[in-house]
Amino acid sequence: MTAPRGAGGPPEEGPANFRPGAWLQGTGPQSDIAICTRVRLARNLQGFAFAPSLEHEESERLFAYIVDRLKHPGLPEALKIIDLDPIEDLERSMLVERHIISRELASSERRTGVAVDEAESVAIMINEEDHLRTQVFDSGLQPDAVWQRIERLDDALMQRLPMAWSEEFGFLTSCPTNTGTGLRLSVMLHLPGLVWSEEIDKATNVAQKIHLAVRGLYGEGSRALGDFYQVSNQITLGREEGRIREDVMLAVGRIVQWEQEVREALLRGSARMKTLDRVHRALGTLERAQILSSEEALGCLSALRFGVHTGLVDGFDPKNVNRALLLSQPAHLQCYTRESLRSEERDQRRAQLLRELLGCTP
Amino acid sequence: MTAPRGAGGPPEEGPANFRPGAWLQGTGPQSDIAICTRVRLARNLQGFAFAPSLEHEESERLFAYIVDRLKHPGLPEALKIIDLDPIEDLERSMLVERHIISRELASSERRTGVAVDEAESVAIMINEEDHLRTQVFDSGLQPDAVWQRIERLDDALMQRLPMAWSEEFGFLTSCPTNTGTGLRLSVMLHLPGLVWSEEIDKATNVAQKIHLAVRGLYGEGSRALGDFYQVSNQITLGREEGRIREDVMLAVGRIVQWEQEVREALLRGSARMKTLDRVHRALGTLERAQILSSEEALGCLSALRFGVHTGLVDGFDPKNVNRALLLSQPAHLQCYTRESLRSEERDQRRAQLLRELLGCTP
Repeated sequence: MTAPRGAGGPPEEGPANFRPGAWLQGTGPQSDIAICTRVRLARNLQGFAFAPSLEHEESERLFAYIVDRLKHPGLPEALKIIDLDPIEDLERSMLVERHIISRELASSERRTGVAVDEAESVAIMINEEDHLRTQVFDSGLQPDAVWQRIERLDDALMQRLPMAWSEEFGFLTSCPTNTGTGLRLSVMLHLPGLVWSEEIDKATNVAQKIHLAVRGLYGEGSRALGDFYQVSNQITLGREEGRIREDVMLAVGRIVQWEQEVREALLRGSARMKTLDRVHRALGTLERAQILSSEEALGCLSALRFGVHTGLVDGFDPKNVNRALLLSQPAHLQCYTRESLRSEERDQRRAQLLRELLGCTP
Repeated sequence: MTAPRGAGGPPEEGPANFRPGAWLQGTGPQSDIAICTRVRLARNLQGFAFAPSLEHEESERLFAYIVDRLKHPGLPEALKIIDLDPIEDLERSMLVERHIISRELASSERRTGVAVDEAESVAIMINEEDHLRTQVFDSGLQPDAVWQRIERLDDALMQRLPMAWSEEFGFLTSCPTNTGTGLRLSVMLHLPGLVWSEEIDKATNVAQKIHLAVRGLYGEGSRALGDFYQVSNQITLGREEGRIREDVMLAVGRIVQWEQEVREALLRGSARMKTLDRVHRALGTLERAQILSSEEALGCLSALRFGVHTGLVDGFDPKNVNRALLLSQPAHLQCYTRESLRSEERDQRRAQLLRELLGCTP
């Protein structure tokens, strides 16, 4: 094959929403395994009730106040504010699938919104569990880059917003688990090797032993779909930011290395043919299935992604695979196809769309 | 697609052994469902011990005697005699896969052989459970054709061989279940519709209620692989040949009609997409799997055969699918590829061969 598969599909350009955001660019260090590095800071404002006690009316005032301050010039990021109030469920779900907002923010009764940059590498959620949740994303293993960027942004925010802070506890948060630094550093890992080798539980235990959390594709409470795992710190209080970062990156580094080792083992000797079989069967399903659930699609795309990065499959651009991962999600699928679909129609439309996106016309 | 798939594979001509025999031609009435009609007569010779008591030496004499008589001119069939004595296990297994000999004959300690015509539509097994087991095959639902042909052959055999017969019981056989007519009429059916609709048990019950046997692809004791079922009479004694034939054909006719009805239902309305999905996923597996067991291959080829006959899949010649069914069997696979393979190598070679045979080079 000479031209990458997928060249025949819809153009990659188009509405910004159909291009993967910063987290799914597939670039950066060790991006074959480390999908994305994300850092978020939980912040609350003095003079306003905290989330569980924050009435709707007060949340309106707070929202207006924050938006006004964010609009003042001089922030180190060029942010656009999305008011979630007039936004319909489907589009909110799209923002969740893009990891710009959390599921909690999408379903909140309060007045909510998000400030986001063009590349979707910065997103500040307004009136989530905390008044502000500032997030910076970058593709690959990028702790330094996201760190420097969020520090600069946080400093700028503190200059224009009176943050709730105590000498004793540090930053005050709605839930005590976030108090102190308010920091969560998380790395999304793609670990098909560990899953297929049935070593994933041992690997996630490494992280859990040092009190890190291991979550699925959509964070808290979500299952590990498509062999995607998020590793992040749980402790925010009584520990320096530098220490939190070290802990997370140490565990992530070990898991990444472990994944590399099992990948090599899966490609060696008699294991190689079984791995090739698994990857190509997934490709066969993507090429031929007429009905594909979001979960099965993720599983097949995960295998294909593994195959592309290990050289077991030729001719696919990794960017197309990432894009397929995103567009096969329920809300993206419906927005992209401009159809409001029942679940079973979605599964048919998904199968069709994935064939188009991946250039599979056998 | 314009040219049928598989045109790029190995040529259909070649050693006779790699072309399907009469039973798998895919022609004849209702051949989309009825693969083949087979009739066999169990016969024994006067003056020789019957099988359980037949010593090796006596079986040698009997074998020589029968072969001599079969060689005399004037038989209505042109038969070639295959002496199984010098034939190796792999080639014996091939004859079993071609339905020319039974598994029992292939593993017999006695002196055995088979007389077979060029088209493999007639096969007389020598020294199986009975001294002679005369079989006639034809593709599709052909009770009259096989009947007339075996009657003529049986008459000619009786003129040259002294058959063991009693006024009271009819033809005497080694096992009493075959005594009387010595007749077994069987029809091999391809019933994916009933299997997929989970109505197969009800359908086989119809046959079993009137004392018919329902067996798998390789007869007695074999499981129903690839949705293939053989329906045949169990009773041979005290019933006229015509009555046996009527019973079998009545049950077969009802099952064929039932299969037709469920196929129509599987192609209608909301069921259609699920059926299309199932067929195309099987095709995807045939196109992409790198390791394929004989059992899985049969299952996928069964789905593909269904797809071809119901128009859900374009561009495949049903003859190529039948040929793939045959060549994917373990002994054929090894003879065809001229390789002596361990089981796991076979599964890899099978996957590769099926792609070639079906012209699947996605």
